Amino acid sequence: MGPHPAVAAIRLAVRRVLHDVLNHHCAQDRHGAPLVLVACSGGADSMALASALAFEAPKLGVRAGGVTIDHGLQEGSDLRAAEVALRLRALKLDPVDVVSVEVGRAGGPEAAARDARYAALDATADRHGASAVLLGHTRDDQAETVLLGLARGSGIRSLSGMAAAAGTNGRYRRPFLDVDRQTARTACLIQALPVWDDPHNTDPAYTRSRLRHEGLPALEKCLGKGVVEALARTAQLSRDDADALDAWAAEAEATVVDEDGTLDAAGLFGLPPAVRRRVLRRAVIAAGSPAGSLFARHIEEVDRLITAWRGQGAINLPGRVGVRRQGGRLVIRQG
Amino acid sequence: MGPHPAVAAIRLAVRRVLHDVLNHHCAQDRHGAPLVLVACSGGADSMALASALAFEAPKLGVRAGGVTIDHGLQEGSDLRAAEVALRLRALKLDPVDVVSVEVGRAGGPEAAARDARYAALDATADRHGASAVLLGHTRDDQAETVLLGLARGSGIRSLSGMAAAAGTNGRYRRPFLDVDRQTARTACLIQALPVWDDPHNTDPAYTRSRLRHEGLPALEKCLGKGVVEALARTAQLSRDDADALDAWAAEAEATVVDEDGTLDAAGLFGLPPAVRRRVLRRAVIAAGSPAGSLFARHIEEVDRLITAWRGQGAINLPGRVGVRRQGGRLVIRQG
Repeated sequence: MGPHPAVAAIRLAVRRVLHDVLNHHCAQDRHGAPLVLVACSGGADSMALASALAFEAPKLGVRAGGVTIDHGLQEGSDLRAAEVALRLRALKLDPVDVVSVEVGRAGGPEAAARDARYAALDATADRHGASAVLLGHTRDDQAETVLLGLARGSGIRSLSGMAAAAGTNGRYRRPFLDVDRQTARTACLIQALPVWDDPHNTDPAYTRSRLRHEGLPALEKCLGKGVVEALARTAQLSRDDADALDAWAAEAEATVVDEDGTLDAAGLFGLPPAVRRRVLRRAVIAAGSPAGSLFARHIEEVDRLITAWRGQGAINLPGRVGVRRQGGRLVIRQG
Repeated sequence: MGPHPAVAAIRLAVRRVLHDVLNHHCAQDRHGAPLVLVACSGGADSMALASALAFEAPKLGVRAGGVTIDHGLQEGSDLRAAEVALRLRALKLDPVDVVSVEVGRAGGPEAAARDARYAALDATADRHGASAVLLGHTRDDQAETVLLGLARGSGIRSLSGMAAAAGTNGRYRRPFLDVDRQTARTACLIQALPVWDDPHNTDPAYTRSRLRHEGLPALEKCLGKGVVEALARTAQLSRDDADALDAWAAEAEATVVDEDGTLDAAGLFGLPPAVRRRVLRRAVIAAGSPAGSLFARHIEEVDRLITAWRGQGAINLPGRVGVRRQGGRLVIRQG
């Protein structure tokens, strides 16, 4: 008799990623068994991930380790982290690290915690020479991320959610992007794994938590139970679309930009609007405008220098970047 | 003293579209004043639209008429339609038609009513030689349409909502896609226009109505009041992106398809995934598979003949279309 379907599902998801990691490892002519770390909060998603890694890695000649981050945001978080480390060692993961980080304030509490976490994971992976770090994000997390991107209204790149492989050389892997949260929970239950529910996950002060407990259930009530799956599929399709259009824009840019860095208005006019706006965005960022402060409406205004030219003055963009039309050319300058 | 801001907003939106209709009219060397019809249910959105058309058209030398559809779905709908026609005539629209339609059952109640309505609008526009038919969809309708598309999970085309100009020669125009529903309601109130609330709009049996009264408010509570605007902007950006990628796919198809209609696998492999899947979708539809029955998962399976070839058998698609790989080529055949 095989394992419970939930356990089978999480193991299959991890096995697929480990195969891929091994292929990369061999292609780079690296010797010895590769090390794969699981980033584990002690919650159901990452505990399920740790259990599947512990089960699959030895069969494939992969070393399996773990890391848990102490964000220092709650009383007793150090004890909690030590307990998670014990649970990971009980799964026979080795090495297992506890890393304490100091969470700043830049970009809000969620972004600051995330930045601190990834810096610590990067350092840990480097220290151990790990080939990959597995992250426990599920299909439900992906759906929430798509909705958060949708609320920004800044186009399909922000709808593309989290990547299955991210970071330098695709170091970060998310094996559970096609696994739903309930499957991960069930797998923990079946395997009698103790899990810890992060109180942040149910704290309505956090936008993501509100989405999870109010927004998504309301959407499911209106649109049916397939919403989470549809959102996750939208992420994948949007990511591929955005990648293709970015590639097109990079090629198109070369055809309209001159040696002096000015852009040919007629050439820009001939591009599809979606490509033209991406070329303009690239050029403005290259001139020094910070990507994070540059919104769709900024690019639309620049675009009107091309599509609705009626002698407008210079357009001022974030990062003291100015764009003006001079005859048949766009001049983009910082200063 | 100028008009109330809500009235100014709806008039500006209509004026812009009338300018555009006039430009098209002149470019086609057509003589006489063009006729623009408003499609009016008697609800606040389309009554506001009718009032703005009645105000702006004479100033631009445009004739303004109206049409209201009796769907025959409710007791007394004929009296209701006659009353709407009276209100349109009171605005000095001329001609004003009442058209009765018979709503079929194909595709569900909403789709069937829509199909019948557009057929009747087309016939009415043809009969009067109208240059354009204005539709009262607001930014809120657009946001709902994007969410409905999102729930299908079939990619960015389904996120692109309703077009500002649609139908043959862009006959259908939606001047209010950037106007919110509340502005249209306020404009009716200020102008003392009687409006009729379609009971379907609050009937929870309709998916769109559930979205309007439960889904969107819940999302706004989680994500803030800007959600409707963000969804509408997503629609526009997605539409442009989808258009650009479709154009790319049409070009790419020509480079991989042979005289005998088979496709070159190596050429397909070299395309970005987003473009390759669109080429495959085009080819499968061209072979006779009905677009409406063809889902992302079908195309993904065909795609694996290219990206994960391991001797799979033929793939059967809706419309009795089969796809198989034969050596280095994809053979797509109906029958």
